[in-house]
Amino acid sequence: MKNVEKYKKGYFMPPQVDMSWTSKEYPDKAPIWCSVDLRDGNQALVIPMSLEEKLEFYKMLIRMGFKEIEVGFPAASETEFEFLRTLVERDMIPDDVTVQVLTQAREHIIQKTFKALEGVKHAIVHLYNSTSYAQRQQVFRKSKEEIKQIAVDGAKLLQRLTEEAGANYRFEYSPESFTGTEPEFALDVCNAVLDVWKPTADRKAIINLPSTVQMSMPHVYASQIAYMSRNLKYRDNVVLSLHPHNDRGTGVADAEMGLLAGADRIEGTLFGNGERTGNVDVITIGMNMYAMGIDPGIDFSYMPEVVEMYERVTRMHVHERQPYAGKLVFAAFSGSHQDAIAKGMQFREDHREPYWTVPYLLIDPKDVGREYEADVIRINSQSGKGGVGFIMEHNYGIRMPKKMRENFSYFVKSVSDHRHQELKPDEIYRLFTDHYLDVTKPLEMEDFMIKKQHGHWKGQILMRVGGKDIIFQGEGNGQLAAVAHAICDAYGITVSHLEYSEHDLDRDPSSRGIAYFGLTDEKGQTTWGAGIDTDTMTASVRAFVSAINRMPGMAERITFRNLSSSYDQIHNFRRSASHH
Amino acid sequence: MKNVEKYKKGYFMPPQVDMSWTSKEYPDKAPIWCSVDLRDGNQALVIPMSLEEKLEFYKMLIRMGFKEIEVGFPAASETEFEFLRTLVERDMIPDDVTVQVLTQAREHIIQKTFKALEGVKHAIVHLYNSTSYAQRQQVFRKSKEEIKQIAVDGAKLLQRLTEEAGANYRFEYSPESFTGTEPEFALDVCNAVLDVWKPTADRKAIINLPSTVQMSMPHVYASQIAYMSRNLKYRDNVVLSLHPHNDRGTGVADAEMGLLAGADRIEGTLFGNGERTGNVDVITIGMNMYAMGIDPGIDFSYMPEVVEMYERVTRMHVHERQPYAGKLVFAAFSGSHQDAIAKGMQFREDHREPYWTVPYLLIDPKDVGREYEADVIRINSQSGKGGVGFIMEHNYGIRMPKKMRENFSYFVKSVSDHRHQELKPDEIYRLFTDHYLDVTKPLEMEDFMIKKQHGHWKGQILMRVGGKDIIFQGEGNGQLAAVAHAICDAYGITVSHLEYSEHDLDRDPSSRGIAYFGLTDEKGQTTWGAGIDTDTMTASVRAFVSAINRMPGMAERITFRNLSSSYDQIHNFRRSASHH
Repeated sequence: MKNVEKYKKGYFMPPQVDMSWTSKEYPDKAPIWCSVDLRDGNQALVIPMSLEEKLEFYKMLIRMGFKEIEVGFPAASETEFEFLRTLVERDMIPDDVTVQVLTQAREHIIQKTFKALEGVKHAIVHLYNSTSYAQRQQVFRKSKEEIKQIAVDGAKLLQRLTEEAGANYRFEYSPESFTGTEPEFALDVCNAVLDVWKPTADRKAIINLPSTVQMSMPHVYASQIAYMSRNLKYRDNVVLSLHPHNDRGTGVADAEMGLLAGADRIEGTLFGNGERTGNVDVITIGMNMYAMGIDPGIDFSYMPEVVEMYERVTRMHVHERQPYAGKLVFAAFSGSHQDAIAKGMQFREDHREPYWTVPYLLIDPKDVGREYEADVIRINSQSGKGGVGFIMEHNYGIRMPKKMRENFSYFVKSVSDHRHQELKPDEIYRLFTDHYLDVTKPLEMEDFMIKKQHGHWKGQILMRVGGKDIIFQGEGNGQLAAVAHAICDAYGITVSHLEYSEHDLDRDPSSRGIAYFGLTDEKGQTTWGAGIDTDTMTASVRAFVSAINRMPGMAERITFRNLSSSYDQIHNFRRSASHH
Repeated sequence: MKNVEKYKKGYFMPPQVDMSWTSKEYPDKAPIWCSVDLRDGNQALVIPMSLEEKLEFYKMLIRMGFKEIEVGFPAASETEFEFLRTLVERDMIPDDVTVQVLTQAREHIIQKTFKALEGVKHAIVHLYNSTSYAQRQQVFRKSKEEIKQIAVDGAKLLQRLTEEAGANYRFEYSPESFTGTEPEFALDVCNAVLDVWKPTADRKAIINLPSTVQMSMPHVYASQIAYMSRNLKYRDNVVLSLHPHNDRGTGVADAEMGLLAGADRIEGTLFGNGERTGNVDVITIGMNMYAMGIDPGIDFSYMPEVVEMYERVTRMHVHERQPYAGKLVFAAFSGSHQDAIAKGMQFREDHREPYWTVPYLLIDPKDVGREYEADVIRINSQSGKGGVGFIMEHNYGIRMPKKMRENFSYFVKSVSDHRHQELKPDEIYRLFTDHYLDVTKPLEMEDFMIKKQHGHWKGQILMRVGGKDIIFQGEGNGQLAAVAHAICDAYGITVSHLEYSEHDLDRDPSSRGIAYFGLTDEKGQTTWGAGIDTDTMTASVRAFVSAINRMPGMAERITFRNLSSSYDQIHNFRRSASHH
């Protein structure tokens, strides 16, 4: 690829490379979470949030359980200032929540920041300046010492103004563009800042290491974090925080590996909103813990609500494949996946399996407020009988015989292929009711009578055929056999094999049942039909007639035979039926 | 978070855990790429691609440089079968491209697969069966030995049918759901398959290890890959392939770390399309290499074209924050980022810097077909003077004085804030031309004359004011001074400080110039104006008049003074001007 020679790695390895954190498999406890949605997320929006939109987002963050929330850069604009003042004036900051404000290391900016904080109980004042090689060289044109002095001066100013305000704010320092900074220099600056603040166990300082631009693989970032964690002064009184971005698509891995390497805290956003490729997505990190059995301490159980709010106020879209939250992330279209999921769910039910182990689903969609019916088994031309069967059973209580399910699935797939679209559960059900259930053409069953005579069953069916009423009569060793004979004999239909089943539909003794018939003709071709009625026998007759109607060549057969019954026959049937 | 107790880790650590791959910082050469867009990607679409859509996608993959392309599962459906036949019949498989087909280990399926391959020169037949604990337990209900036998039988069948076909196809085997399989068992199955195939240096076999469902952190996956890589038989003749998915949002890290741990090949898709959260995005992996100076061997330089094709034929959306490809991934809205980027670009130009080191941009957007003008500096209420100045200079050649840029930026930000929307470059330019350039109210300059008399300059300006023509006269020690006096004296305007600059606009001697005036009044308030003309002096006068017009209170001042000139004065001016 052209121009490749203009690139080289932009980061610096720490003087001691420590990968011992790889002995841990995953973070075994939740970090301190800090949402930066309202600041870093907001500043990356095409249309920044309005005051009311920010308030709505803030309330959701509180509801989800965030205890540290960066609410803005109050000195940067009137909107940001006003937002924090509104939180104070409307008394919207719970006692257990700390609001965080960002500020540059300049006196009038810090003073305005403190003005915005008036009346806030718990606050973190977050100071930053850029320390990277490129920014020192190109933007600030300052030496390492001068850059460090900016940080130290800012740290002092924060301390002085906090004392003057009689406040008890906590402090955070970020060597911005940490990932482009020599780790020894970043350490030097952070330790100089800590020497000013002299954090104690009661009032810890936060050192935040942003991958402002993600420049390395995650294990390299983690080795930088490990180096900082081992060499920071006052380490016991420092909360080591990470602020990953996602330029290389590995923000989540950065955060997780950084936690293994010693970090205590994560700054990120919902769904990874943020500058360019975004901040790290705290939902994915939290849900990854959850999927390992670690409580993330944030509640993601009503994910669809969170998505709805987020999309509305940020005007951004949560991608269909966004882990744990996207519309398609639990969807299985392919037959083999659907089959495995259906079997896994059945296994779970049968064995009362305590752990979630269903194939192809990392977590139970229900645990984040999603539904099996709408979100998991989805039907298009790639789908198989497992999926269609699952939907018919779980959504509509229809448990077709296995071969009928296969037959119906091929029909559904061909419709999806032909229409070139996905079929929703209600469309699939409609295909069933329109094409398999209570089919009334060419034969429409109006009524029937069955009676036992001399140990033998005799059946009479009143049928409407091409505008005429006709009565069919037949005998058999059972009620169904009598009905079957009545119809088959009339039209000379040979059924070489017959499959029958039925079950209740509504789990209620007085309610409906469904019957299924599969009729195999002399050529070995099987045709399926179904019937529903509160009376089992009626459901069965309907199912049989449906199957007969669906057999190939029935219309021609009926035209060819052109049967009829006399007025008297019809009259007698009706009279008997009314006394029946 | 509720229900957390129903989760535990679903993967298995290898018997020897090898993390020595962490000594490498990044992959130092491109892997073999295999696109699975047309198979794994396609089967995860709400609406699978049509034949023609698949052909278009395939052609793009060829153009980008993919040499191995999984084209489908030919035995699974008529569409898949037909697609491969179309490639053969239309002679669309270049000699250096190998098509790959997926098949289960069942004879009639494999036979149909071979039928689809007739006439293909280079093919990989890709055999799979699921080996995971959960699938053995819940779906297949088979022992380890039985599962291994399925793989071995399939491997033999592939070999026999290939021999019978007289073909020279290469083979690939995937222990599907590898990430849920005990590594020792996966190794055992893969080695049994390799014992059947007995790969040679001339005909290597591919062993592909899918994270069918991503279950662990990336370093754990890499340790599984390292274990397989060290213990596979015939290792020199095995191409070790990875097929990561993205359930935990770390597919890219899985792939990259797996490469460090010994893998040779990556199966993935463009933009990470694929089941649920997607397959791994090969573009991000390739571009991550590129950003380190490693040629990925695939051409991503016309990314917007690839995005356009992808969105059209898959009906999926490339997210705004998709690394290297999303609409917003190079965008800087915030003032400090814009400022640093503008300075970095200037530094790059000034120092002819060979390497790309511009802050906040991991790569040069131009290298993937994007534009600075439209994609990088974007202006909304969060933006600063650096950004507005950059756009005015780079898009329109307008280099305002620093303080004017600041003044104009505040104006632009306030408009964006008020309108609650982003402002595009043409809208910003329009704000400049509407409000700062050649402002003609209340004073409209019609013509002017300047002449030198006794070492002093005398100026006359014909102005249209409130429907009347008026002539202003003044003197000064320069042309501009004479014009300035003419206007200021007439209305009693005091200018305590004046800033002036001008430059050419079109880099062409016969073309236009632009002049800027900043007028500071007695209260210390500075008002800016600009003028454009092919004549420098005219541009300057226009700029001065624009600034005068924009001064606060001008309309009132003009009404109050209510000046006028006689018909003769006007007549004389016009006559002189025409001879001028």
